[in-house]
Amino acid sequence: MTSVTSTERHTPVQSSILNSARAEVERHGILGLRVADVARGANCSITQIYRYFGDRDGLLAAVLGDVYEELVQTSFDKYMEYIRSLDVITVDDLVNTLPTPTQLAAMTSQEVRLQILAVSVKNSQLRTRIEDFSRAMLDQWNMGLDEIEAHLEPGVRLDRRIFTIMILVQTMYYRTLLGDVGFTDAEYQQFLRDKFTL
Amino acid sequence: MTSVTSTERHTPVQSSILNSARAEVERHGILGLRVADVARGANCSITQIYRYFGDRDGLLAAVLGDVYEELVQTSFDKYMEYIRSLDVITVDDLVNTLPTPTQLAAMTSQEVRLQILAVSVKNSQLRTRIEDFSRAMLDQWNMGLDEIEAHLEPGVRLDRRIFTIMILVQTMYYRTLLGDVGFTDAEYQQFLRDKFTL
Repeated sequence: MTSVTSTERHTPVQSSILNSARAEVERHGILGLRVADVARGANCSITQIYRYFGDRDGLLAAVLGDVYEELVQTSFDKYMEYIRSLDVITVDDLVNTLPTPTQLAAMTSQEVRLQILAVSVKNSQLRTRIEDFSRAMLDQWNMGLDEIEAHLEPGVRLDRRIFTIMILVQTMYYRTLLGDVGFTDAEYQQFLRDKFTL
Repeated sequence: MTSVTSTERHTPVQSSILNSARAEVERHGILGLRVADVARGANCSITQIYRYFGDRDGLLAAVLGDVYEELVQTSFDKYMEYIRSLDVITVDDLVNTLPTPTQLAAMTSQEVRLQILAVSVKNSQLRTRIEDFSRAMLDQWNMGLDEIEAHLEPGVRLDRRIFTIMILVQTMYYRTLLGDVGFTDAEYQQFLRDKFTL
């Protein structure tokens, strides 16, 4: 059984299993993945899947771990790419680039993350992988904040603790559930603007 | 097919189906519920389950909706019960009574909530029920905050917007995933203390 880290090179069979599993997840959702369907899509046997990934949980850990890391890393990379394009960074730049409750794409990504996190509660391989990735992501945010602070507009001091806590604990799904009675994008951004600085 | 609201009276068969489903969820987790197991536990047929609850999604919506509402309502009730026992409420009272990252019971409840929310992404009956409950819960919080403000220590003004946003958007699961490198209970409480007041 191979490790589930994404950095590892995959054999052609492993890759076609992972591609098939990814397609199944996109078609039927994360919670209903069947190993038999994955085997059919990859033109391999269920036994082969078990040989490479141990069991259904191992397969899920590999596929969902990849999806999770891609979603989070892409969103971080886009954020930093925009921030790095600025000579002087204002608090508005920091706030307006973060996802807000009513952005459809961001909320779809939140729903996928939520489902993957829910699976990780009982899938210890997936949980370990997401734990490792979350710690690496925290390091990336800290390095990103170093860059941000080096280019902040004069006189502004960032409250890194707030920035980090807000990024760490929030899921917008609760907000989404409230519909019209939840806070607005404008209220949320004003809140971030007020609290991100010292 | 009956409504999935918890306020409705259940027939004996419906109750035994719901009890059996609840026991299955506790035994095998939320994501793996099988209707055949529920039928066996309730001494009824799968057809009867479908007659009362429409389909597997309808059954899940009823059971998980009940569990979700109980968890959130109980936690709110306990919070308000403590707060109401105080003659004068300090900011420390408000902060120290909220769950912190390292409380095992609170985190188990978070994990169950996370799993139920993940199911609600694709189960529209469950999602509608949780949406309705979330709005009712927001009303309860607003009434609770009225009570709190009426007994706050002199000179303290609560920032209701922050209190509500923090309660609405946070899931501690992200924090849990970070283990030792995440913020501490003390840091989290200091953050709440600093930000809850105007």
